[in-house]
Amino acid sequence: MSNRLPTLAIVGATGAVGTVMLDILSKRENVWGEIRLIASPRSAGKVLRVRGEDVVVQALAPEVFDGVDVAMFDVPDEVSKEWAPIAAARGAVAVDNSGAFRLDPDVPLVVPEVNADQVRNRPRGIISNPNCTTLSMIVAIGALHRTYGVKELVVSSYQAASGAGQEGIDVLRDQMAKAGGDRSLGDTQGDMREAVDELGPFPAPLAYNVVPWAGSLKDDGWSSEELKVRNESRKILGLEDLRVSATCVRVPVITTHSLVVHATFDREVTADAARELLGGAEGVEVLDDPAKGEFPTPNDVVGTDPTWVGRIRQSLDDPKSLDLFLCGDNLRKGAALNTAQIAEVVAKEFTQA
Amino acid sequence: MSNRLPTLAIVGATGAVGTVMLDILSKRENVWGEIRLIASPRSAGKVLRVRGEDVVVQALAPEVFDGVDVAMFDVPDEVSKEWAPIAAARGAVAVDNSGAFRLDPDVPLVVPEVNADQVRNRPRGIISNPNCTTLSMIVAIGALHRTYGVKELVVSSYQAASGAGQEGIDVLRDQMAKAGGDRSLGDTQGDMREAVDELGPFPAPLAYNVVPWAGSLKDDGWSSEELKVRNESRKILGLEDLRVSATCVRVPVITTHSLVVHATFDREVTADAARELLGGAEGVEVLDDPAKGEFPTPNDVVGTDPTWVGRIRQSLDDPKSLDLFLCGDNLRKGAALNTAQIAEVVAKEFTQA
Repeated sequence: MSNRLPTLAIVGATGAVGTVMLDILSKRENVWGEIRLIASPRSAGKVLRVRGEDVVVQALAPEVFDGVDVAMFDVPDEVSKEWAPIAAARGAVAVDNSGAFRLDPDVPLVVPEVNADQVRNRPRGIISNPNCTTLSMIVAIGALHRTYGVKELVVSSYQAASGAGQEGIDVLRDQMAKAGGDRSLGDTQGDMREAVDELGPFPAPLAYNVVPWAGSLKDDGWSSEELKVRNESRKILGLEDLRVSATCVRVPVITTHSLVVHATFDREVTADAARELLGGAEGVEVLDDPAKGEFPTPNDVVGTDPTWVGRIRQSLDDPKSLDLFLCGDNLRKGAALNTAQIAEVVAKEFTQA
Repeated sequence: MSNRLPTLAIVGATGAVGTVMLDILSKRENVWGEIRLIASPRSAGKVLRVRGEDVVVQALAPEVFDGVDVAMFDVPDEVSKEWAPIAAARGAVAVDNSGAFRLDPDVPLVVPEVNADQVRNRPRGIISNPNCTTLSMIVAIGALHRTYGVKELVVSSYQAASGAGQEGIDVLRDQMAKAGGDRSLGDTQGDMREAVDELGPFPAPLAYNVVPWAGSLKDDGWSSEELKVRNESRKILGLEDLRVSATCVRVPVITTHSLVVHATFDREVTADAARELLGGAEGVEVLDDPAKGEFPTPNDVVGTDPTWVGRIRQSLDDPKSLDLFLCGDNLRKGAALNTAQIAEVVAKEFTQA
């Protein structure tokens, strides 16, 4: 390979994750030559700013991938399924943030802090980015796993509306405007259901409420989101028998997923040892001093890159278990940032050849 | 004992739980003769309605308990600690909803659907009502325990603002009014912290946020609320070695606590068997058909009496474990209703003598 700056294409540049991606690429060390912005024909012709320059959005078509080295996809599953192989066939490495390829044995599922070495193992020319809920914990769990060996994860999520895209954000804002202005709402049975105009992507009102559902219904009552946490954690950690029980719940937060994790390891682990290990782990910030009111919350974490960990406790009944509270910006590390990090690992193949 | 309607005193009649208590007593089958309303001197003289009648609130004093058969306390721990024994010394059975006596070995901790028989075992003349978070799951867990034998509970809470009393409700409403009217709030780092005027009983803003803290700091990073879930579950179920890990998180909901529970039993239990058992259990309602969008949410459950259970799944790695989502109105079954139910069990001693 020549020592040149590779060409990047961003497919889905105008979406919720794409918008954050342009911001991230404008702020990170620049490893890219040309950056092409690609979206549906409806958005073609729009002008967006990236790295301080105006770039015209192009309509998705096979030719736009000619000369592209890395193509990021932030589009629905069915669009990725069709177009990531087209990009790969035209010579680009596709880094895909949909669910289309995550469990494909010929597609690596990569979190650079955990398994960056998997990037080169891509027989289809496609690399997958994990689901945002898995990404909200896996950097911290991966760091603990390297020393203590993880055996089981019991996960409860507190998922933000933006995990359901721009429509999720808009619907929650509309419901909040209604709920915030009416002091009678929120404490009478069924009142939000009557008051809100639009449920959008959620099966029940989200303002003044929590909704124990995300994704689609799979076998035996599990949601697709819950199975993603299970299957993707196993694949990223390379532990095909890892025990995982997840329950995914949507909360009235715009951006940043939170997770409660009860993690059991092969070896004993104290809270102090976990705090020290996580404090030194790449991509993790520990904020854990309840006496000073210090623990992560979505409102404090939104807009930041790391996985934040607090409320670290050794389980009272098992010295091999920890109870943790984690927060991560689901549009950044949970989506755009991890995709950018994977793409940067690929970019090194061009500049370090 | 004579066959007469016993006299009831309600101490803390003007608080958030007291207000719900008056509503509950007005609607349930009437087992009481006189009902006396008692509060701090500041609230004395107020006129409140109960059972369709106006009743003047009396100031708390030893004499108000003379002739009282049952005295309910919905007041802070330190007030209960001082006054429940005074009521008991004057001949009343004190039913206390504070944390003052819950772990006292000479005070039973009662949930009538689970351990009504403990009501008579009250050497101090005091009976305790569990914490609202424990009460949001224990009727359902108790029903499962009777058949399957519970071994371990991993609990994550989604707790409502009213669990922190009227001040919690007022602060969340104020924050929601601010957040709902400002479409810029909720997605920029730290913005709610700058925007909200008042944190009230919460250590961080609650609108557009979740806060992983409830109660006070205890040893090894645990919160008092988390230890209550552990210790009270053990005492109510009579299982002093039950393994319990709880993480308590406050969410922007006015009333109704939700809990995710990963429960492990001595015996195998399928989701269908659990659904059937819980469907027939006293005080439990099953709402569990995700294909039809059916699962409990706080907004649907608030104002109702039962413990609602949905999202019942057999764990994929262990046929002896279930994953559940539960909702319960923290001011009703979580406080006033369970207190009223305990008092009614005591009342039968007077009428069935």
